[in-house]
Amino acid sequence: MKENRMHNFNAGPAALPLPVLEEIRDEFLNYKGSGMSITEVSHRSKWFDEVINDAKSRVKRLLKLGDHYHVLFLQGGASMQFCMAPMNLISEGQSADYVNTGTWSTKAIKEAQIQGKKVNVVASSEDKNFSYIPRDISFTMGAAYVHLTSNNTIKGTQWASFPDTGGVPIVCDMSSDIMSRPFDPALFGLIYAGAQKNIGPAGVTLVIIREDMLNRVPENLPAMLKYSTFVSKNSMFNTPPCFAVYTCQLVLKWLEETIGGLENMEKINREKGAILYDVIDNNDFYRGTAEKDSRSMMNVTFRLPSEELEKEFVAEALENGLGGLKGHRSVGGCRASIYNATGIDTVSVLVEFMKEFARKK
Amino acid sequence: MKENRMHNFNAGPAALPLPVLEEIRDEFLNYKGSGMSITEVSHRSKWFDEVINDAKSRVKRLLKLGDHYHVLFLQGGASMQFCMAPMNLISEGQSADYVNTGTWSTKAIKEAQIQGKKVNVVASSEDKNFSYIPRDISFTMGAAYVHLTSNNTIKGTQWASFPDTGGVPIVCDMSSDIMSRPFDPALFGLIYAGAQKNIGPAGVTLVIIREDMLNRVPENLPAMLKYSTFVSKNSMFNTPPCFAVYTCQLVLKWLEETIGGLENMEKINREKGAILYDVIDNNDFYRGTAEKDSRSMMNVTFRLPSEELEKEFVAEALENGLGGLKGHRSVGGCRASIYNATGIDTVSVLVEFMKEFARKK
Repeated sequence: MKENRMHNFNAGPAALPLPVLEEIRDEFLNYKGSGMSITEVSHRSKWFDEVINDAKSRVKRLLKLGDHYHVLFLQGGASMQFCMAPMNLISEGQSADYVNTGTWSTKAIKEAQIQGKKVNVVASSEDKNFSYIPRDISFTMGAAYVHLTSNNTIKGTQWASFPDTGGVPIVCDMSSDIMSRPFDPALFGLIYAGAQKNIGPAGVTLVIIREDMLNRVPENLPAMLKYSTFVSKNSMFNTPPCFAVYTCQLVLKWLEETIGGLENMEKINREKGAILYDVIDNNDFYRGTAEKDSRSMMNVTFRLPSEELEKEFVAEALENGLGGLKGHRSVGGCRASIYNATGIDTVSVLVEFMKEFARKK
Repeated sequence: MKENRMHNFNAGPAALPLPVLEEIRDEFLNYKGSGMSITEVSHRSKWFDEVINDAKSRVKRLLKLGDHYHVLFLQGGASMQFCMAPMNLISEGQSADYVNTGTWSTKAIKEAQIQGKKVNVVASSEDKNFSYIPRDISFTMGAAYVHLTSNNTIKGTQWASFPDTGGVPIVCDMSSDIMSRPFDPALFGLIYAGAQKNIGPAGVTLVIIREDMLNRVPENLPAMLKYSTFVSKNSMFNTPPCFAVYTCQLVLKWLEETIGGLENMEKINREKGAILYDVIDNNDFYRGTAEKDSRSMMNVTFRLPSEELEKEFVAEALENGLGGLKGHRSVGGCRASIYNATGIDTVSVLVEFMKEFARKK
């Protein structure tokens, strides 16, 4: 462990790149000669303008977004988007398709329904405890959108590729795998992601909205619940969460300049996933919980022969500097979250520990 | 300037206490032996539990709140509260009283009205460009609440004391003077404050709600828009803005342990205000814009003989390490924001600069 840092497998808030943390620390009392901390500069200053505009530009370059996509920084996490997406994008008399792939999809559905919006749950993997991603889905022609959760942190599943929705725009919760791989933005009308897994600290939500979706936003919504408010004010209708946006900017810079973009990031993530799933598949002691073709490259969920052994595993790992390996409280078991900032070296340490733990038992 | 730090008169985000910034920097790579940055620990961990619970306890002690008050940490700033307060607290058929004392009150009124809520603007100081706090107001018997903005950052006015509303609970936007002075909490049903002026960085909103107000919250609201959601989950229904809450905790600790509580803080703030208003009142070169008995102890607004001189004043001040003295873009002129973290020493430097600038012209 460098500087007594833990090998961090937290599901979110999660590990951040060490060079990013060091840069924040080093300039924390005096941001770029301003004589102020980044937490003290005005959001209307040239310093913060540069931060937010650079962060936006990097998102656009990394995801190869055309100018008909707006990049926004909001607050309230994905949970607030569960509310805002249907409120803004399902017009009177319309319905939306939702695919239910786990806890977060279920919550998204609930938040649309509580507003009286009509939701079609066109597919669900609840029949097998959300251990797979549904296939061969019939989407509703003329639906307002199709809602997907691209990666399911709790059950450890991920859409390997996105489905053909027949032109209906996808609204996608990408909180736990945004920036982990390239994808075709043309499919998406709205993308949202709480930052605290792959792109920053808790407290800011990246929202990407396609220009034509803005036509649906009702006039009579409160300002803070309308996407158009944030588009027209460059995410600064009111004071944005400056520190969180700044940290995202540095993570995005690291992604572009140190990692070299999303193609490289995906290669690294696939390698991390491969060596971890390899131990699970080649050792009877461990058992993966997700179906193989639905496995997540971000959250690797697995069980040991007994709950007692799982407890022991988590505790002994922690003693060895490997933290955050307990499964979500709603499902138990073990989970290694290996987001972008978790390096191959850290995953290799876990793999060795797993082999050794299994050997001893 | 210590360590090349600026004398910071920003209106928000604003100065933070230097010892707080130093503590954040020093433990930024390894929070209390966790081996993680505070931005990397789980919000479900013992580390963050201690942070949020300690912050809550300090708010309760500093403001002398009984157990029938809930202390919450939300996102979206005061602007989101302009929307949530009427949504949660004005029941079917009810109306609410609003006092209009400036830009932020005006926005609060608009956000209630857009929801179709009935608003009585029972007093306004718009007739004199919001330069005073209205007196002798007739409140509406049976109103859902009376909404006040305790301090008006743009116009530089502040309620010297809160009005007798005949038992109708006050809902108060205290964004720019919370924790600057003691007050009687019994008058208030709801208090909210964006943190970025007196208690922390941008990205978290302190909300204090009285138990009986929760009975009004409609069942059929989206989870993230209901106060009861945050009460029942200790502000962790979803991932809170951890870094911002942590910074608030440290500022609150500084307020309690270094300053010695709100009585002391008020004394210091009154002294800062007194020496600054003294220059303005005793020098024909400067002219205060707020009526004397409505003056803010947080935002001191003043004009110079001409706009050219104001520009020169702001520029020359900056050259001398005094920043943030430009008035709000909507009103012009000059403004010195002297929140809790701005020390008497810093205000004294400004006072000397003002005297010298006037002498030279």
